[in-house]
Amino acid sequence: MQLLKDRILKDGTVRGGSILKVDSFLNHQIDIELMEAIGAEFHRRFAGTPVTRILTIEASGIGIACIAARYFRVPVVFAKKTVGKNMDGELYTAKVPSYTKKVCYDIMVSKRFILPEDRVLILDDFLAQGNALKGLIEIVHCADAEVAGCGIVIEKAFQGGGKLIRDMGVRVESLARIKSLAGDVVTFED
Amino acid sequence: MQLLKDRILKDGTVRGGSILKVDSFLNHQIDIELMEAIGAEFHRRFAGTPVTRILTIEASGIGIACIAARYFRVPVVFAKKTVGKNMDGELYTAKVPSYTKKVCYDIMVSKRFILPEDRVLILDDFLAQGNALKGLIEIVHCADAEVAGCGIVIEKAFQGGGKLIRDMGVRVESLARIKSLAGDVVTFED
Repeated sequence: MQLLKDRILKDGTVRGGSILKVDSFLNHQIDIELMEAIGAEFHRRFAGTPVTRILTIEASGIGIACIAARYFRVPVVFAKKTVGKNMDGELYTAKVPSYTKKVCYDIMVSKRFILPEDRVLILDDFLAQGNALKGLIEIVHCADAEVAGCGIVIEKAFQGGGKLIRDMGVRVESLARIKSLAGDVVTFED
Repeated sequence: MQLLKDRILKDGTVRGGSILKVDSFLNHQIDIELMEAIGAEFHRRFAGTPVTRILTIEASGIGIACIAARYFRVPVVFAKKTVGKNMDGELYTAKVPSYTKKVCYDIMVSKRFILPEDRVLILDDFLAQGNALKGLIEIVHCADAEVAGCGIVIEKAFQGGGKLIRDMGVRVESLARIKSLAGDVVTFED
């Protein structure tokens, strides 16, 4: 997606050869026009694929999922990382190690919101080592539902998560695939 | 907002006379059509009020803010509750006690994303004791920016946060104001 790649080159910054900061338009401040273009592009790529629900994970995935859901006309469900007083009932859970925060956490989805007949499109902002995505796929499988595919805004292809998920037989569509951040320079896959 | 009130009566559940669960349409699963109606209603209520940025807090506020931002055509900024490796630079912070999770946490916004010339509309899903909103207002004031107003989906008026914020001279627009959850029955303000 050229608009996104151009934006990453213009406003993204690289730290330490592996961290890409896109907080000015994707995961702290959110550029809504770009987000709408991203939502439309996911819809175009998954045209013809039945989708009954969009699943993402708090926090950065939520905006992307909500804007994309306008095109798919399906509900969004976001996996939670902490249980509050207002959460109860039976939960699907999965363990996810976080790459950026150096901790391991449980993600949770209420069993009421993924049903066996669902075809779930999983959306997230980043795909690096694939841990969050693996956890979300595990939850969909626990619900006996089907993964319609995964839509990722930025895939750091050099960190291997995309290969891992595709090798599981899951379709992954990434709007910008980064081959390398070596020398703090962004190089995209073709 | 009648559509919202009807939905709360239909799908909300009350626990212990003070907790309102709306996780089937607002803060775990998200009904996008309802969210669009909510975004349009905030836009209608703040018509004529200049807004340059929407500020919210992770996680539940993000979907609401992103959908509303489509109507206002301004960027969304969401305050974070934890600092990741991909977050650096100077931050505005405020301390917020959480009502539902019984902890106190710091919320953070990068100084790059609220500027003195900004007129900030603060949006969130719930207003109970007003702690999150107070923290967000504090951050806007620290940035020498102006609070254009606060838009809340559900105000639990009996918990006093709305009065507290309005007494600070801040305009608060709540789409559903709940007078009482006593006896696990939802009673709205007129």
